[in-house]
Amino acid sequence: MADNTWASAITSVVPNQIRVRGYRIDELMGRVSFGEAVYLILRGELPGAAVGRLMEAMIVASIDHGVTPPSTLAVRNAATTGAPLNACIAAGALAVNRHHGGAVEDCMRLLARGAERVAAGETAASAAGALVAAEKAAARRLPGFGHRVHTYDPRSHRLLALAKEAGAAGPHVAVAEAIVAALARGGKALPLNVDGAIAAVLADLGFAPELANGFFILARTAGWMAHVAEELSREKPMRRIDQQSCAYDGPPPRDVA
Amino acid sequence: MADNTWASAITSVVPNQIRVRGYRIDELMGRVSFGEAVYLILRGELPGAAVGRLMEAMIVASIDHGVTPPSTLAVRNAATTGAPLNACIAAGALAVNRHHGGAVEDCMRLLARGAERVAAGETAASAAGALVAAEKAAARRLPGFGHRVHTYDPRSHRLLALAKEAGAAGPHVAVAEAIVAALARGGKALPLNVDGAIAAVLADLGFAPELANGFFILARTAGWMAHVAEELSREKPMRRIDQQSCAYDGPPPRDVA
Amino acid sequence: MADNTWASAITSVVPNQIRVRGYRIDELMGRVSFGEAVYLILRGELPGAAVGRLMEAMIVASIDHGVTPPSTLAVRNAATTGAPLNACIAAGALAVNRHHGGAVEDCMRLLARGAERVAAGETAASAAGALVAAEKAAARRLPGFGHRVHTYDPRSHRLLALAKEAGAAGPHVAVAEAIVAALARGGKALPLNVDGAIAAVLADLGFAPELANGFFILARTAGWMAHVAEELSREKPMRRIDQQSCAYDGPPPRDVA
Amino acid sequence: MADNTWASAITSVVPNQIRVRGYRIDELMGRVSFGEAVYLILRGELPGAAVGRLMEAMIVASIDHGVTPPSTLAVRNAATTGAPLNACIAAGALAVNRHHGGAVEDCMRLLARGAERVAAGETAASAAGALVAAEKAAARRLPGFGHRVHTYDPRSHRLLALAKEAGAAGPHVAVAEAIVAALARGGKALPLNVDGAIAAVLADLGFAPELANGFFILARTAGWMAHVAEELSREKPMRRIDQQSCAYDGPPPRDVA
Repeated sequence: MADNTWASAITSVVPNQIRVRGYRIDELMGRVSFGEAVYLILRGELPGAAVGRLMEAMIVASIDHGVTPPSTLAVRNAATTGAPLNACIAAGALAVNRHHGGAVEDCMRLLARGAERVAAGETAASAAGALVAAEKAAARRLPGFGHRVHTYDPRSHRLLALAKEAGAAGPHVAVAEAIVAALARGGKALPLNVDGAIAAVLADLGFAPELANGFFILARTAGWMAHVAEELSREKPMRRIDQQSCAYDGPPPRDVA
Repeated sequence: MADNTWASAITSVVPNQIRVRGYRIDELMGRVSFGEAVYLILRGELPGAAVGRLMEAMIVASIDHGVTPPSTLAVRNAATTGAPLNACIAAGALAVNRHHGGAVEDCMRLLARGAERVAAGETAASAAGALVAAEKAAARRLPGFGHRVHTYDPRSHRLLALAKEAGAAGPHVAVAEAIVAALARGGKALPLNVDGAIAAVLADLGFAPELANGFFILARTAGWMAHVAEELSREKPMRRIDQQSCAYDGPPPRDVA
Repeated sequence: MADNTWASAITSVVPNQIRVRGYRIDELMGRVSFGEAVYLILRGELPGAAVGRLMEAMIVASIDHGVTPPSTLAVRNAATTGAPLNACIAAGALAVNRHHGGAVEDCMRLLARGAERVAAGETAASAAGALVAAEKAAARRLPGFGHRVHTYDPRSHRLLALAKEAGAAGPHVAVAEAIVAALARGGKALPLNVDGAIAAVLADLGFAPELANGFFILARTAGWMAHVAEELSREKPMRRIDQQSCAYDGPPPRDVA
Repeated sequence: MADNTWASAITSVVPNQIRVRGYRIDELMGRVSFGEAVYLILRGELPGAAVGRLMEAMIVASIDHGVTPPSTLAVRNAATTGAPLNACIAAGALAVNRHHGGAVEDCMRLLARGAERVAAGETAASAAGALVAAEKAAARRLPGFGHRVHTYDPRSHRLLALAKEAGAAGPHVAVAEAIVAALARGGKALPLNVDGAIAAVLADLGFAPELANGFFILARTAGWMAHVAEELSREKPMRRIDQQSCAYDGPPPRDVA
């Protein structure tokens, strides 16, 4: 019936040929990085090489954060009951919500309000001051700022530096940094956390906030795979997983050559 | 209680410092590719640059295959009911099983049987012949060979070429190619499909078969994000999704510059 | 640490004794119906027998609706890829959202607005008229009214009749019926669908709207189990599931003795 | 295309009429219990009233077991991150696997081996002795026997008593009881746990082992709903959920009137 017809602009598949956004997938393989391919499939065009590296850095930043995040606990709890790998990953994805991973989306919306002010002629500092005041007045926490473990989030600093190197830092990054300064001035110093830094970069790259937690899930899937493999190789089934009783016993600190 | 203590060798998190397998995550960002980071977190050591590129190519190969795979239909069906993005991705992951994506794992086990024969002194051709005969005698299909759409899978050829360039092609790749030759000699030509090529490469890189469908889910998450975004921007809620009524209307064929 | 302590009022488990809301579970077994037990665990008290029967009828009403609902398609699509039963059920649950099954929650909130008006002295007819007008002015559809297949939903009529028999029909049921009358008077006749009838009954029983889609999932799990069993026993793996090409070939119409 | 046509024998839906296995669903509502409806949809025929009550008792037995089961922890962990109810339930279903809830399926297969021996002329005691010896020789644990908390599982005794009252106890129940006796004679007393009792009853009722964990998920969904509601009403988001720090503060012990 005619009204069931629809169209997709993502991937064309005909016998012996697969094209993603027009490019042969076998030509993309080995020529573009995964970060570039992710940008391509979501935006329709290949990014420049610098933005590709930025995408990769953003995904690397989210690859793991140890055993305590609720999503990783969900993955380990599923694994200990005997769930297959894909079900463990699904359980992890289901634990990425407003309160965990979701700050990226909320922070993108917050920074967008600041970027609008900047576009209307305000300075980033002024826009940031207005946002901080508004959220304080509404008794809301600033998503993307502060961390339960880190007072300085090394991932954020590195990511913003890479964004600037790539020429991809725009008003959202500027507002994010201005909010940190405004908070410090106000006597309530909070670091930009990795969610906030990713939010600023994604927003300046033009991604929609609705996609934000997908990047986290994509990156963290690699971490979850490592946790499932470790759970199965080192632990007994049906154990009580106590996140506070876990010690790190991996390689000692070392530097990338 | 003492018996609740356990250990993890993946990531250490202390205030203001996160180390994955011993490396500072902010140092990894921008210095290693996502493919290298995935290898690192799963194997404990950084790979060489060539293997890193091979990992990336393998993930790019799996990024999307249009609207017909059952997992993508599961994602679109969830999206049309109003599911949030993470639930759509979870629904996709739950549709990656033995019959869809699972051929990688099964093929890894098949090729391992062949590689054992090669290690014991047989040629790849002889090992392949024995495997083909054994599976035929048992009336089993060869996982990783044949495709419902493609008689020549361009992804497989590209991936094996990259594996050889990287010096990473070993007995599993040799046996996979020998199986294709044996099938052709036997009058039943079947291509090595992308699952089979990924299986050969993962096995020669030393990955465990149990992780196989995780790589597929990780890569395809990017594709699923694109399908969810497209579903929400172009279609009405609660539509009947008929995979055979979908036309491609994206960019025309083009080449990577 | 002290701040990790918490409490639960649902079930106490000590060696050889399990009590749900204070009652021994082995004493509940065989003495109360599942509908009564569901009411007990959610509300903390056993309902009267009539409300127990009403709960059971509500759950029976949701047990299945054939092969076309998106959640059932999600279940079948997972099953055809080889997913285990629990993953098929999870895929089904993930497809129960705002646009599918979610009308119960939305309708409960709508009827609550009507019931507030009734509590403030309006008649149900007046409250219903106000709601219909308000939703029309806002160009919103009325959740719980209308059905893509049925112009008369037999489940709704039966459920409201049972609610009245049980003495459990209150202002939410009255407003729901008044909305049907108001729509008919306005020339736009729409039946109360099963979601709307369940919404009215749940609301008059005092359940929170947030729990609404849980009842649907609970009931439909039985239907999904039947669909998985049928898929595995009658169909080949990895088939294309076309909901419009399915014929019914079960028992002919018959009456409950 | 002709080869896309298929059939389902479960539910027929035509405008204004829904029939489950031939019966009008509105006629089933209020006339049959949920247990009878579950039996009907899975087996194709309504059971007698006694079997219906047994089905209900079996489902009531599984409705909850406090906060420590891994599936309930998965549900609570999802809820604390802000997941919607259906995603919490899906996360719970994904944690029901071989090591948790899966003993029902494994025990059904074990008892089937015993029932075959009984059908071939052995006594239940002899069949049980052979099974215990075989599993001991293979160093396998007996699924359905023993419990980490209970040395006497009150649910099992009640369920078998109800099965006998219903005239539904057959060779699987007999073998299950004979295994308990054989273990006690062998000096290794283990109770029949609720998984084992459900396994025996389901097997004597003629259900397929593949469906076993579906009954658990169906029943436990009600418990999971209660845990989500309690988590949201009593706890803060993103808390660390320590199962050993939870006290019961619900109603004191009481009896069903």
